[in-house]
Amino acid sequence: MSVQVLDNHRAGQPPEAREEPWLTVGKYRFRSRILVGIEQYQSIPLIKQVLQASGADVFITTVDPDGMRSSLLLSDLAEEIPLEAYTWIGTTSFARSADSALRTVEILRRTCGIDVIKLDVRTPDNRPDNAQTIMVAEKLLADGLTVLPFILPDLADAQRLAELGCAAIRIMASPVASGRGIADPRPLQEIIEHSRVPVVIEGGLGTAHHASRAMELGAAAVLVNTALARAASPGLMAAAMRHAVTAGRLAYQSRPELCVA
Amino acid sequence: MSVQVLDNHRAGQPPEAREEPWLTVGKYRFRSRILVGIEQYQSIPLIKQVLQASGADVFITTVDPDGMRSSLLLSDLAEEIPLEAYTWIGTTSFARSADSALRTVEILRRTCGIDVIKLDVRTPDNRPDNAQTIMVAEKLLADGLTVLPFILPDLADAQRLAELGCAAIRIMASPVASGRGIADPRPLQEIIEHSRVPVVIEGGLGTAHHASRAMELGAAAVLVNTALARAASPGLMAAAMRHAVTAGRLAYQSRPELCVA
Repeated sequence: MSVQVLDNHRAGQPPEAREEPWLTVGKYRFRSRILVGIEQYQSIPLIKQVLQASGADVFITTVDPDGMRSSLLLSDLAEEIPLEAYTWIGTTSFARSADSALRTVEILRRTCGIDVIKLDVRTPDNRPDNAQTIMVAEKLLADGLTVLPFILPDLADAQRLAELGCAAIRIMASPVASGRGIADPRPLQEIIEHSRVPVVIEGGLGTAHHASRAMELGAAAVLVNTALARAASPGLMAAAMRHAVTAGRLAYQSRPELCVA
Repeated sequence: MSVQVLDNHRAGQPPEAREEPWLTVGKYRFRSRILVGIEQYQSIPLIKQVLQASGADVFITTVDPDGMRSSLLLSDLAEEIPLEAYTWIGTTSFARSADSALRTVEILRRTCGIDVIKLDVRTPDNRPDNAQTIMVAEKLLADGLTVLPFILPDLADAQRLAELGCAAIRIMASPVASGRGIADPRPLQEIIEHSRVPVVIEGGLGTAHHASRAMELGAAAVLVNTALARAASPGLMAAAMRHAVTAGRLAYQSRPELCVA
């Protein structure tokens, strides 16, 4: 069944395809409003299914500077997936300190030529460390990199990162991998309304209606990861999330006058 | 923009199109998992946009036996919309008493040959009257009609209506036109899990993520109405709802192991 869904998604041209990119940095155009993590899969066919069914156009790669995780070899992936069609960005999501994040970026830059960084500096309990993230962002920006930082919902921190020159800000909806959805929409909405750069909502988006709701709040995009990896069928859940993002975006554009609970 | 969305939806073949009908009664096949009310529009182009963008395959018609409402003429609609492509059902949603509901059905049957009834018997404050609905359902079923009753979420009442022979049961998520979404998922989920007939969730589904959530609970379909009628662009919101329903259905099928808040 998931294969049919995939074929079908390719055949159709969802409305989001005609939208302008939500983010343009240098030569990169981010069109798909869904970003997917792929580091939790041990199977290349699954990664392929998730990338294709989600409609993602960004490929997120990483290294673990402390050598604690295994990952699939890019060369093996490249045999199955047209990686050149994707915008490559690097992530520091394994980093639990500013130093580890900086070392990750250095390796990604040197070995893969990566210059767009999905910046995560997390505490040992896997939550964004806003202060450390701002500090690392400043250094990376000074080095000429494009930075997409992940923080707890804090208006002042979000504005500071935008002022520093971050291309987009990623805001946590609820703890990573919790599946709790949007814990409180108000700070997210406040950040979105005041932000001069695109806002991505991520963390805890466990199922389709969480992603729709994030987009209804005015997010430019969402990032999903564990919801797909833990689904019995990651490909179906990826297709679900793709529809959910389109649904939420269209609902946002249709500006309903009803209250959105 | 909404026109592009419509064209596009026609061009693509969303995954739900290949699913088996969720409801088959006699010669009728209900495939689309979204039902839309159209009695709130004063413009035929808007009705056309909503029907097409939603992907609905059911056309809901009614009369007001007490002559309190105006409505567009079917003959005018038929000039613009291929009404013969739709499954026609009648609704008693204007009825505020058992007697009014029965008279509505009689008129619909006599004048339009309608034999599938979206049965609503509501109290003066526009909430389903479960007891009266059960009483009218019994009479209509005895007359050989197909009945799709709308009730407050009550497991015993839902089971009673299924035992009587109703083809599907429609359960209220939150008050009609409130936009409050799913007030409490537990009774809905309980009814769905115990039901031997398809369960439709409706009432208060104000935006896309409400519809996704209803489908994630295992609903066979949703009915939306005011959310579209009150949107600045009903066509865009109809497209949003269509994607939302597909998203929720796919998420349900992918059976996520994460909790769904």
